[in-house]
Amino acid sequence: MPLGSRGPWDKSESRYCGVETEFSDDVPGLLSYNISSGGFDFVVAPLMNPSYRPSSVGKDGRNSSVMPVAGSDLVLSPSEWSSRVVGKISSWIDLDSEDQTLRLDSETTLKQELAWASHLSLQACLLPAPKGASCANYARSINQVLQGLNNMQLWLRVPLVHVDDDPEEKSSSHPNDSWELWNSFRLLCEHHSQLSVALDISSSLPSPNSLCRWFGEPLRVAILNTDCFLTNTRGYPCLSKRHQNLVTGFFNHSIQIVISGKLLHKLHGGSSGSAALNSNNNAERVQTHPLRVYLDYVGYLYQKMDPLPEQERFELGYRDFLQSPLQPLMDNLEAQTYETFEKDTVKYLQYQMAIAKALTDRVPDDKVSDVTTVLMVVGAGRGPLVRASLQAAEETGRKLKVYAVEKNPNAVVTLHSLIKLEGWENTVTIVSSDMRHWDAPEKADILVSELLGSFGDNELSPECLDGAQRFLRQDGISIPTSYTSFIQPITATKLYNDVKAHKDLVHFETAYVVKMHSIAGLASSHPVFTFIHPQHSVEIDNRRYKKLEFEISRDTGSVMVHGFAGYFDAKLYKDVHLSIEPSTATPNMFSWFPIFFPLRKPICVKPGLPLEVHFWRCVGSTKVWYEWCVTSPCPSPIHNPNGRSYWVGL
Amino acid sequence: MPLGSRGPWDKSESRYCGVETEFSDDVPGLLSYNISSGGFDFVVAPLMNPSYRPSSVGKDGRNSSVMPVAGSDLVLSPSEWSSRVVGKISSWIDLDSEDQTLRLDSETTLKQELAWASHLSLQACLLPAPKGASCANYARSINQVLQGLNNMQLWLRVPLVHVDDDPEEKSSSHPNDSWELWNSFRLLCEHHSQLSVALDISSSLPSPNSLCRWFGEPLRVAILNTDCFLTNTRGYPCLSKRHQNLVTGFFNHSIQIVISGKLLHKLHGGSSGSAALNSNNNAERVQTHPLRVYLDYVGYLYQKMDPLPEQERFELGYRDFLQSPLQPLMDNLEAQTYETFEKDTVKYLQYQMAIAKALTDRVPDDKVSDVTTVLMVVGAGRGPLVRASLQAAEETGRKLKVYAVEKNPNAVVTLHSLIKLEGWENTVTIVSSDMRHWDAPEKADILVSELLGSFGDNELSPECLDGAQRFLRQDGISIPTSYTSFIQPITATKLYNDVKAHKDLVHFETAYVVKMHSIAGLASSHPVFTFIHPQHSVEIDNRRYKKLEFEISRDTGSVMVHGFAGYFDAKLYKDVHLSIEPSTATPNMFSWFPIFFPLRKPICVKPGLPLEVHFWRCVGSTKVWYEWCVTSPCPSPIHNPNGRSYWVGL
Repeated sequence: MPLGSRGPWDKSESRYCGVETEFSDDVPGLLSYNISSGGFDFVVAPLMNPSYRPSSVGKDGRNSSVMPVAGSDLVLSPSEWSSRVVGKISSWIDLDSEDQTLRLDSETTLKQELAWASHLSLQACLLPAPKGASCANYARSINQVLQGLNNMQLWLRVPLVHVDDDPEEKSSSHPNDSWELWNSFRLLCEHHSQLSVALDISSSLPSPNSLCRWFGEPLRVAILNTDCFLTNTRGYPCLSKRHQNLVTGFFNHSIQIVISGKLLHKLHGGSSGSAALNSNNNAERVQTHPLRVYLDYVGYLYQKMDPLPEQERFELGYRDFLQSPLQPLMDNLEAQTYETFEKDTVKYLQYQMAIAKALTDRVPDDKVSDVTTVLMVVGAGRGPLVRASLQAAEETGRKLKVYAVEKNPNAVVTLHSLIKLEGWENTVTIVSSDMRHWDAPEKADILVSELLGSFGDNELSPECLDGAQRFLRQDGISIPTSYTSFIQPITATKLYNDVKAHKDLVHFETAYVVKMHSIAGLASSHPVFTFIHPQHSVEIDNRRYKKLEFEISRDTGSVMVHGFAGYFDAKLYKDVHLSIEPSTATPNMFSWFPIFFPLRKPICVKPGLPLEVHFWRCVGSTKVWYEWCVTSPCPSPIHNPNGRSYWVGL
Repeated sequence: MPLGSRGPWDKSESRYCGVETEFSDDVPGLLSYNISSGGFDFVVAPLMNPSYRPSSVGKDGRNSSVMPVAGSDLVLSPSEWSSRVVGKISSWIDLDSEDQTLRLDSETTLKQELAWASHLSLQACLLPAPKGASCANYARSINQVLQGLNNMQLWLRVPLVHVDDDPEEKSSSHPNDSWELWNSFRLLCEHHSQLSVALDISSSLPSPNSLCRWFGEPLRVAILNTDCFLTNTRGYPCLSKRHQNLVTGFFNHSIQIVISGKLLHKLHGGSSGSAALNSNNNAERVQTHPLRVYLDYVGYLYQKMDPLPEQERFELGYRDFLQSPLQPLMDNLEAQTYETFEKDTVKYLQYQMAIAKALTDRVPDDKVSDVTTVLMVVGAGRGPLVRASLQAAEETGRKLKVYAVEKNPNAVVTLHSLIKLEGWENTVTIVSSDMRHWDAPEKADILVSELLGSFGDNELSPECLDGAQRFLRQDGISIPTSYTSFIQPITATKLYNDVKAHKDLVHFETAYVVKMHSIAGLASSHPVFTFIHPQHSVEIDNRRYKKLEFEISRDTGSVMVHGFAGYFDAKLYKDVHLSIEPSTATPNMFSWFPIFFPLRKPICVKPGLPLEVHFWRCVGSTKVWYEWCVTSPCPSPIHNPNGRSYWVGL
């Protein structure tokens, strides 16, 4: 029974809550007790008798040919196995023990259990946490299994621990940050997409910065131990405010909760004891599952979450989905694309506001009837900026003459019918031409354009406006007046793995537009390139080079940088901005998702070390492209030399 | 005129010596002065007037359409350009300057000069050393050029400097070790095979460990400045002992010398002054080239080198050439392979010595006429061990009965004719069978085999001998008695680039047999896996796992690990060994080159950090394979999981 439903759009995995049980050889009974009666959605249950050790089999005369598993595959239907049971790998295994017998026993058992789970088509298995600081042999065995695994997921259990680093013992080989253990394990397994994390939550939580990293990791499950619950005034379990926020964060990232441990809050006269122990004699007792109170509390947290705003619901399907950026200069946009962008009322209101301010600045109140301002919309599309301009003129009482310049002949068709429909024939002149080559009959007072990409200049706004400023008066105004791109280092395992799945270099040297969700921002974003319009210098040079240094807060711990999130902030006119840079973002504007610049090989940054990054904007005769690299803590290759993989056509 | 010739086999590039000159627009004169008269083989000469700055062109009315290069391409023949001239890129360029004009001028000039050099089909250009600690923009420009370059090599000039690290300021961003600068540059350019190093040698040299690293790098040229020469008692230039050794090292690694600087040793009344200045009026003077004394001294060093031993000369063609290891169990060796191995007299003398000792131990002097020792050669090939056994018997006066077991029917043919020819029919029985399956008519006292690969167990000696020990007496002797593999981390740019050239994963997860030459060993080798024969344990398990920690001497500085050199040391019997491990290597034995385990991505290790490495020997039902990884300073992927890329068939 799911924790709740937030609406018909709610397909989140995090509606389902599991319970960790002990070993039972009555699996149907285990399910009936925990699921049918207990209200949980699935169990995380050991598959093999915990007393089993391969090395002692045969020696004591027992039959070694049958594995001591919890019932045959026939005790449940295939769909019950796969939807109700997560296999819990024996927690005694220790593949990095100094004891060779234990090590070899562990490897044998691990592989037998995973083979059995795979035979049952389980959706996932929970792997016990590595026992020490070293995990190479454990990772090697898991990596071998991963090479030929069916669809099953492997969830590596990792305690959520980060004792803050003593800067004195930086080189200590025992990481006190469990993220490091996870990081080693997944690097050894080469970011395998079927290896993910099950975080073990305890009563104390690390710093917010340290916690934040996990949201860029493939986190599937959070295991809430009953001892991390507090007791409210009526004796019921509840969570601290920080724990509540964390659990809400999990819900928002489709991370499932699993309840684990013993009943520590005695209510209803229910007996204490773990889930599996009780299951053995549940037929005789009709009583509440001992962990039900925790499940109910988690359900309560799920249901009391704020509803998702409509725009967010609309964008659910785009989350962490890589898209190639548009090439509006080389290609013509399609009607559907215009349709989507035109819906962004916030954006056009900002434009209207900027145009209104520019009109007021240009034409004093006592001249409104004498002066007609010439405004040119360059890249008019199907007309939304023409409308915003006319509305600004009406709002300010200024007289306006509009030229609507558009290179896409298909959009010009719509533009014509709009002008007819609205009766704007006397005010608006349509020009079907590329602004870079149009021979304008007069000069403009105001040049209005919306040519910005997610990274500001990446759809070649600079090159287009340099061409268009020929017909702007010397004292004319360009809206936008300027724009700046920003980048921010991020952990983004999902995006990295999606790029990697293409198995080629080209995709690692391409920037993607993406609604980022399961990512962790590792430092505040820094400005990269700025362009100002109009440009009055003699020789316009739109090449740029920027060296950036990011400082990652020490209490974050080590981090993995999979690439960079890119944004822009555009000054339309004076204090009117359009921004998707997180700290200044224009509310409720949805025309732009951020851009993602991947790194071919993710870079690990230790606490206190600077992350030095270089970005270039290069300009050739037929194209514009970016190159990027990291030089500290250690140099990466320069990505995309000569725009060999990714470029924007002029 | 080459420095000399060490024999008809001497094809080394290092026979040729160049001279660095200043700019001259009389290139034929420059060549005549420095080469025809001066005795040098080539000049390293600027291609463009050093006063040229693109940004000032046109502004002062000069014609900007012709580049100010040193004469047109017609002044020399194409073969003179390419064999006599190395282009020296303007040394004023600084692509990482804070001054944007200088930066852009530098980029323009760099690209113009390289395009011109490429037009002339020069073999190489010398790039000036990066000016500061940062070189990202310089590397980006070079990387762009490298993407589309013809065969021309680019030699990055790097001063040979390594001020020993003060451990206090480890995180300082200004490396005082010029190797770090080179390392950053080549990582940014992704180990491009046309980018190499020109080392600028000065009067003081870094520590031997620090120096050693360079021999694993693509070092093409060493520039000897005249100020690194001392003066001998007769007033002539000479080099310190350490400099002499270094120069001899360069010669041995095909690294060319270039003499640079002014005459600092006045002899013959020759005037001081640099090469190019004098070239302008050389027609009037018939005098010795001012730098001739240095050239003569370098020639003297070349000629006084010890001659290469015959075996080394024979192996010249194998240097740094990757070979796939043999699969003698799965495949049958060819006659030529037997031929080569049988020539290794040292190896068979060691065997003979070991067998003699074993025979003497087994049969006391007073029993020599009563006892016949049964000796089985398993893997007899074409008979060299049979011969060694019989010679050992003769030498010790012991009676011997020999079984020669061989699975390759082709080798058995040769074996038969050998035995007939030598008249050994009464002593030697030929068994055409796989030792793992042969049903022996009696048990052996001594089992002799030569199944070792470069990494000891890598040709499956353990599995073969486990099979063969069925017919060894309980107290019988196996020769070899045991063997141990060793690994050592190395810098090996050439090997790494050759693996990379295949552009696939498989080649990065394969071990190669290779005569290593241009490599740098970074730490002493450590033992990996040991096998002992016969094995008396109940259950034989030939799986192995070893964790190794290497400490790289602090005075080495940072290093790049491209992979591991592997060796073995085999104890044939008691104190008789066969070894290719450098510290214990059997002299003049040539049957085995070392093995090379590459890393998919080279790992940089900073001074004082441990290098932690894991090696596994895995055994399946049909194959044996290795897996390997690095876990510190930062984890690599586990290489070759499940033997997906490289394995040895059982």
